[in-house]
Amino acid sequence: MIIVLKTDATKEQINHVVEKVKSFGLDVNVSEGKERTVIGVIGDEEKLRVKPLESLPGVESVMEILKPYKRVSRDFSPADTVITIGNVKIGGGHFAIIAGPCAIENREMLENTAKQISGKGMAILRGGAFKPRTSPYAFQGLGEEGLKYLAEVGKKYNVPTVTEVMDTRDVDLVCRYADIIQIGTRNMQNFALLKEVGLTKIPVILKRGMMSTVQEWLMSAEYIVAGGNSQIILCDRGIRTFENSVRNSLDISSVPVVKQLSHLPVIVDPSHSGGKWSLVEPLSLAATAVGADGLIVEVHCCPEEALCDGDQSLLPRKFEKMVGSIEKILKVVGKKLS
Amino acid sequence: MIIVLKTDATKEQINHVVEKVKSFGLDVNVSEGKERTVIGVIGDEEKLRVKPLESLPGVESVMEILKPYKRVSRDFSPADTVITIGNVKIGGGHFAIIAGPCAIENREMLENTAKQISGKGMAILRGGAFKPRTSPYAFQGLGEEGLKYLAEVGKKYNVPTVTEVMDTRDVDLVCRYADIIQIGTRNMQNFALLKEVGLTKIPVILKRGMMSTVQEWLMSAEYIVAGGNSQIILCDRGIRTFENSVRNSLDISSVPVVKQLSHLPVIVDPSHSGGKWSLVEPLSLAATAVGADGLIVEVHCCPEEALCDGDQSLLPRKFEKMVGSIEKILKVVGKKLS
Amino acid sequence: MIIVLKTDATKEQINHVVEKVKSFGLDVNVSEGKERTVIGVIGDEEKLRVKPLESLPGVESVMEILKPYKRVSRDFSPADTVITIGNVKIGGGHFAIIAGPCAIENREMLENTAKQISGKGMAILRGGAFKPRTSPYAFQGLGEEGLKYLAEVGKKYNVPTVTEVMDTRDVDLVCRYADIIQIGTRNMQNFALLKEVGLTKIPVILKRGMMSTVQEWLMSAEYIVAGGNSQIILCDRGIRTFENSVRNSLDISSVPVVKQLSHLPVIVDPSHSGGKWSLVEPLSLAATAVGADGLIVEVHCCPEEALCDGDQSLLPRKFEKMVGSIEKILKVVGKKLS
Amino acid sequence: MIIVLKTDATKEQINHVVEKVKSFGLDVNVSEGKERTVIGVIGDEEKLRVKPLESLPGVESVMEILKPYKRVSRDFSPADTVITIGNVKIGGGHFAIIAGPCAIENREMLENTAKQISGKGMAILRGGAFKPRTSPYAFQGLGEEGLKYLAEVGKKYNVPTVTEVMDTRDVDLVCRYADIIQIGTRNMQNFALLKEVGLTKIPVILKRGMMSTVQEWLMSAEYIVAGGNSQIILCDRGIRTFENSVRNSLDISSVPVVKQLSHLPVIVDPSHSGGKWSLVEPLSLAATAVGADGLIVEVHCCPEEALCDGDQSLLPRKFEKMVGSIEKILKVVGKKLS
Repeated sequence: MIIVLKTDATKEQINHVVEKVKSFGLDVNVSEGKERTVIGVIGDEEKLRVKPLESLPGVESVMEILKPYKRVSRDFSPADTVITIGNVKIGGGHFAIIAGPCAIENREMLENTAKQISGKGMAILRGGAFKPRTSPYAFQGLGEEGLKYLAEVGKKYNVPTVTEVMDTRDVDLVCRYADIIQIGTRNMQNFALLKEVGLTKIPVILKRGMMSTVQEWLMSAEYIVAGGNSQIILCDRGIRTFENSVRNSLDISSVPVVKQLSHLPVIVDPSHSGGKWSLVEPLSLAATAVGADGLIVEVHCCPEEALCDGDQSLLPRKFEKMVGSIEKILKVVGKKLS
Repeated sequence: MIIVLKTDATKEQINHVVEKVKSFGLDVNVSEGKERTVIGVIGDEEKLRVKPLESLPGVESVMEILKPYKRVSRDFSPADTVITIGNVKIGGGHFAIIAGPCAIENREMLENTAKQISGKGMAILRGGAFKPRTSPYAFQGLGEEGLKYLAEVGKKYNVPTVTEVMDTRDVDLVCRYADIIQIGTRNMQNFALLKEVGLTKIPVILKRGMMSTVQEWLMSAEYIVAGGNSQIILCDRGIRTFENSVRNSLDISSVPVVKQLSHLPVIVDPSHSGGKWSLVEPLSLAATAVGADGLIVEVHCCPEEALCDGDQSLLPRKFEKMVGSIEKILKVVGKKLS
Repeated sequence: MIIVLKTDATKEQINHVVEKVKSFGLDVNVSEGKERTVIGVIGDEEKLRVKPLESLPGVESVMEILKPYKRVSRDFSPADTVITIGNVKIGGGHFAIIAGPCAIENREMLENTAKQISGKGMAILRGGAFKPRTSPYAFQGLGEEGLKYLAEVGKKYNVPTVTEVMDTRDVDLVCRYADIIQIGTRNMQNFALLKEVGLTKIPVILKRGMMSTVQEWLMSAEYIVAGGNSQIILCDRGIRTFENSVRNSLDISSVPVVKQLSHLPVIVDPSHSGGKWSLVEPLSLAATAVGADGLIVEVHCCPEEALCDGDQSLLPRKFEKMVGSIEKILKVVGKKLS
Repeated sequence: MIIVLKTDATKEQINHVVEKVKSFGLDVNVSEGKERTVIGVIGDEEKLRVKPLESLPGVESVMEILKPYKRVSRDFSPADTVITIGNVKIGGGHFAIIAGPCAIENREMLENTAKQISGKGMAILRGGAFKPRTSPYAFQGLGEEGLKYLAEVGKKYNVPTVTEVMDTRDVDLVCRYADIIQIGTRNMQNFALLKEVGLTKIPVILKRGMMSTVQEWLMSAEYIVAGGNSQIILCDRGIRTFENSVRNSLDISSVPVVKQLSHLPVIVDPSHSGGKWSLVEPLSLAATAVGADGLIVEVHCCPEEALCDGDQSLLPRKFEKMVGSIEKILKVVGKKLS
């Protein structure tokens, strides 16, 4: 941590800051520059992170040097983490495609969709039983009934399943039915939920908050790891910007940035970022080329009838064609389809 | 709802869209312009809101006309809602100041702070027992112990109290101790929590998500009202922008915008928006002048010792001075201090 | 400047960085922490600002400590700058209201508008002769003819005038007719224009870029001052955010932030930020309360007929009423109307 | 254009709006819904675009239906535009890589860089002679001397050249030396410059404003086409968001979005978006996969010595390796290197 003092900071103010820092068991390196005095803090920065140093008289600003996340960082564990679910691997050169409808509307639709993409590139089946909807009047999901359908269809087509959990009280229930649980963009900083999920042993897809920085995203992953669960797959799904021609702006740079900072696998959701089915293929190819470890794509056997996000769902035949192009790009970047 | 067709939409495509809309029990008004055909939907727009119309062949875009919120809108209830908690009123010309420390660190500090601002403008006492922290390693709050201190100190100084709830499982507990519950910025779209709070009868301060539009904020309020609880106080606390000289950018326009759209009272949190105590007074005066119904301000008897957000906490004597200026501005805008 | 090295930086890499810094004539303070080595640079940071230090092997990040602006900073000149134009003063306790139509459409409208607000609070008359329009097909302004009308009407009502300049080739022309020139939000980083205006002696209103940080805004002011013209009035007019219920989000915090960082006066444009006439009064009162040194408001004698920005123009009688409230708030914050 | 009236709009107000619209020579389609009356405007929307309809009594909102750009839209010209400069083609299946240093610092460096990437994938040589710098104290470019070097080196290695123009007064000068001119991100809405460039016949790279929507970007292109010059290459270089781990967030979706809306070629600048050389390759591969028509990449023979943007410059040997991967991805998306 670096503490920058004001131009007119007095000797007393500087001493007061130094004593304050030392009182927390840390050491200092005081450097008197031509224009400003700068105090470098030596020791465990964590102790200072929540202390109100900027409010001390004479202090102009405080800059952090160490990253606030530890166990999810590449410094902590240099090799890529590989998450294994059944026969599927994600990370470390393994690229997995998660596909299925946004919401589980009924058993038939889910099975019909799964049947058409089974063996065509779908490694994991997705489907929502608890849906986060902006409006209280919109379809909220089938709940446990939906979870049952998902488990049955997954078993039938021999693929692991993933579904979202939104309430701490539902974590146990969801774990009984699904192979992976997803924490959605609006719950990325639902710390109670992160803690609850940290107590389980199930793999977790942690979606990036639509207006969260990469650092906050990694801190939320740190919550889960700190709780005891290190099976985390990060998933970028676009961020909120001023641009209004798409639902969210896919922050494609976050993939290589996270790869540099963390050992966790990162996948991309091209459906929620673009918000239109016509953007799903180009964004999926871009995500593959940029170095992502997988995709989570909305596919629906009949998008016109979907109760949720039909506009951004791909038809099964378009999905199959897209997977062909993805495989070719994977060769260029040295990965293989899981 | 207005459906705009592509320039090259065929007769068949237009008919397909019209039939689709009619199949949902709605009527249409087809207008063939020089360049494009436009279909106006007549009837309850709600039925169409989640249908995937944009994915129909020939459709270019779909525009909503009606607002998706109902019971929180001014159209639904033209007069200002006034929330009454004990002797305190918020809304409809009544301006209330909520003050206290960010977190309840111990009983002494809370009481010491409350004592110094009691009778000096604090209408309601705030203090956090469950703290949403970006880092799992930071102080997470005292939990029920903190709630007890808050209730005791509130009783001693004869003021209602407010504290944040973060987990659906804690709603009952918090209701037993506090007079108002707060839903924080990171939980504005925690729909499970909104539903749970909607089942209670306690007044709710609903903070705006730092990444949420005014419309989404009102939709979250709609969730609580739809659940049966209409005692809502909206609170803007700044939004995330590209500007980095402040913690969040206070979206001051949201106050008059919400006043036009909704009958609910709106207050402002100048502490979290600015993130620095030196900005609290100017932002508080601005919020008063722009038409807010109250403030929620962090005050700490000893900011240097605070375990949380000390940099943005006001000293009691600065708070008292600020209240003097607020009272003068309230006269200009025709309101009075509660 | 602080150079943070990677955890695994080698001795050779550290030495290479140190030598590089010394080769620019600067000294260093090397601090070896438990986790990372940090190099503090001592001397004129300006020499390093454009050097590619982050590309050196072993370097993780580079943090600036000193502010890149000099002459516009409060450190350079602690007292408030007061700009004087004829009988009008802005800054240092003097609050001036600039009012008039967005565009000069014809002489009659300009005069009619000016007549109605003359002596009612308008200290300076505004009107655009060169209009920056998103569409090439929209009204682009009357050019020199408009400048003539502005000068005539200003003289008739004995008030200074302000108008926008967009092209380096028009600076001389505009200086012949107007008393103040304005650089618009889209030209805040038109460095050629800033340099040209820096060569004149005319007061300049420098609008903030709608997606520029406060620091970039001050750097653009520094361009003008570095050229020799220090008569600058900063003007915030809202920034671009994700919120879509207003044209731009007024960044009200920028006023006290700039007041801390710089000695230059800051005014606010409530018309372009809100984009609706109904928001002009609340935003104007907020700007006054937060500590602005003035306002620039669009007033039009007949908004329905305006060729530009009619939706956000105030009627003269509403302007007059608003000025009454502004005067009362000025007393609270210790300023007076110029 | 759709005019939505307020719930409580009176008959008189509705009639007034209808008359107003008709007075501009347009027809209307009035649809009285259950909750609101909606007026559809029939005819040339352009006539209404700048009229202040929202300020009319009883009007709640006004929504545009037609796109404000005409000649750059795909509706106007369905086939891809191909820009030809010497032997190089961009657009319609032709992918061109523009490479070279950020700034022209001296003849030796420019030639040394060009020599190393000549025949290795560089189709066009870039280099800045006029540099837009945030600080007035930073290196501003060599001006005409730099233009001479660029022309000489381009001729020597037989490649077309591109350089930025910032001032309307320099357009003629730049056209004498360069084969393509670039309008930078900060000048995307410098309408005087757009008009001046519209009068020339030289191909133009129009960079997206870092704060501009796709629609505004296309409107700026429309300015140039409206002036008579239709040789435009759009270039996305990242947008400003809240994310701070990169210099700008590459808005990768803009490429397929623009491809749907316009016939103009779109290229991507991976150097300015990421701001770090280590992100240039992944972002370049992503841009290729998403469907871009080319890249503009900063390459420097010795990044540590660069006077500008050295941190984001690629070494020639890294550039060469990257071009190999790009060629393989081009095959997947059905394009070829120009």
